[in-house]
Amino acid sequence: MKTFVLQVLVGFGDCDPAGIVFYPNFFRWFDLATHQMWHGSGYDIVRVRREQGLIVGPLVDVGATFRSPATHGETIEIHSSVSEWTGKTFRIAHQIRRADTVLVDGFELRIFARPDPQDAARIRAVQIPEDFRALFS
Amino acid sequence: MKTFVLQVLVGFGDCDPAGIVFYPNFFRWFDLATHQMWHGSGYDIVRVRREQGLIVGPLVDVGATFRSPATHGETIEIHSSVSEWTGKTFRIAHQIRRADTVLVDGFELRIFARPDPQDAARIRAVQIPEDFRALFS
Amino acid sequence: MKTFVLQVLVGFGDCDPAGIVFYPNFFRWFDLATHQMWHGSGYDIVRVRREQGLIVGPLVDVGATFRSPATHGETIEIHSSVSEWTGKTFRIAHQIRRADTVLVDGFELRIFARPDPQDAARIRAVQIPEDFRALFS
Amino acid sequence: MKTFVLQVLVGFGDCDPAGIVFYPNFFRWFDLATHQMWHGSGYDIVRVRREQGLIVGPLVDVGATFRSPATHGETIEIHSSVSEWTGKTFRIAHQIRRADTVLVDGFELRIFARPDPQDAARIRAVQIPEDFRALFS
Repeated sequence: MKTFVLQVLVGFGDCDPAGIVFYPNFFRWFDLATHQMWHGSGYDIVRVRREQGLIVGPLVDVGATFRSPATHGETIEIHSSVSEWTGKTFRIAHQIRRADTVLVDGFELRIFARPDPQDAARIRAVQIPEDFRALFS
Repeated sequence: MKTFVLQVLVGFGDCDPAGIVFYPNFFRWFDLATHQMWHGSGYDIVRVRREQGLIVGPLVDVGATFRSPATHGETIEIHSSVSEWTGKTFRIAHQIRRADTVLVDGFELRIFARPDPQDAARIRAVQIPEDFRALFS
Repeated sequence: MKTFVLQVLVGFGDCDPAGIVFYPNFFRWFDLATHQMWHGSGYDIVRVRREQGLIVGPLVDVGATFRSPATHGETIEIHSSVSEWTGKTFRIAHQIRRADTVLVDGFELRIFARPDPQDAARIRAVQIPEDFRALFS
Repeated sequence: MKTFVLQVLVGFGDCDPAGIVFYPNFFRWFDLATHQMWHGSGYDIVRVRREQGLIVGPLVDVGATFRSPATHGETIEIHSSVSEWTGKTFRIAHQIRRADTVLVDGFELRIFARPDPQDAARIRAVQIPEDFRALFS
């Protein structure tokens, strides 16, 4: 299981009047880490969409447990790995740390999809491509 | 169980290159709905902190399931209620809808806390005050 | 000169550790007001792009002067109007108020554009359509 | 004139349905660069507030000119320097670049302040401390 690490500098504006990170930002960083995992591995979701008609990564389910707060001026790390594969879903585990302190444990459950042939505004989950699975297993 | 409803206009900038709401914004709206539930009910968390030393609402756990996307120019509604009380936690259920369509089902698990007497940088969960519970039950 | 007014509830998470609105959010609300001015007037930028090939509204220049802060739980108003037209640009004046107090005075200078025929990644400013000008003058 | 450089990875969620950075994020990065300029130089605004009663950096005026767009997966640089000092204001020039391409030119005009003795909710601009000026000249 490959693990990817992304560093982020916490901004003053990422924090709320309590002086700690406003929690939706942790999900912003989850998403940033997921995209950087793809992008940094040469998996180009824009090209995959154009050439194969596949929509990479619609989100089905997310969650997070908050263990310790962070504040501005701190550099945090998002540790991400694909922790589970089913035929049509994959689960990305994200752990956010500041040095040895775990701040957040969370996950994103995502799919691959195609536009629904009956209704272009809707999508349908499809099998996860083997090359994608090989790249992140 | 009282339910609170907040309307939000989805902005162009709330959406991502796929043309749909960037998911961390749903959590921003969960948090907005929670604070408006308090504020709109006359429960002033700044005053409670100052007068009683109580920190209202640190987040322990959150989650969401995404059922249908939303896009800019749409007005959505966040329906929020406290769905579960334990001695030291309360769970706020949030459902985001556009007219009759459910877009997101989620929750926030929050606590009441006081600064830890041994370490001012840490907090400790305390019993949820009766007046708070009465207001949102 | 038509003026459009949009109300926004300031969230806890829109504020920074100083307890006041984190300033980039004011620009988020400028942009929201601009899009709502279009959308609420029936000017559909997605359709205009598809049917006429026109890109509505790329931003050239923005600015703001901050006169008074705002905080969470407050409802603010963005008052917006197109204050100046040149052949290829239009300037939207935004004033943000809380009741009678002016919080922010600012503007966005925007254009109409088409993809550059020599380089699809670039755009070129074009004349502002008469129907657009008529709608917001 | 010292120049400070901060690198930022542009996220998918930093971009809008046009596929380019949603402009308020550039101001988020201006503010991030300003705070990192202070923090990275050992100028601790929380301590200065506590020990000297000085509020560092309230914003008076900002502006930006947008020259070229950026998109997700790109790493951009914010080049920042204090370009002008008056007795009670300082102007931070920010230029955002991707390699040799200038994306945004902007500025923030900020002050030092103290709480108004007549009205604690208001602030008053004060002379900029010499040690601050020496650090960033």
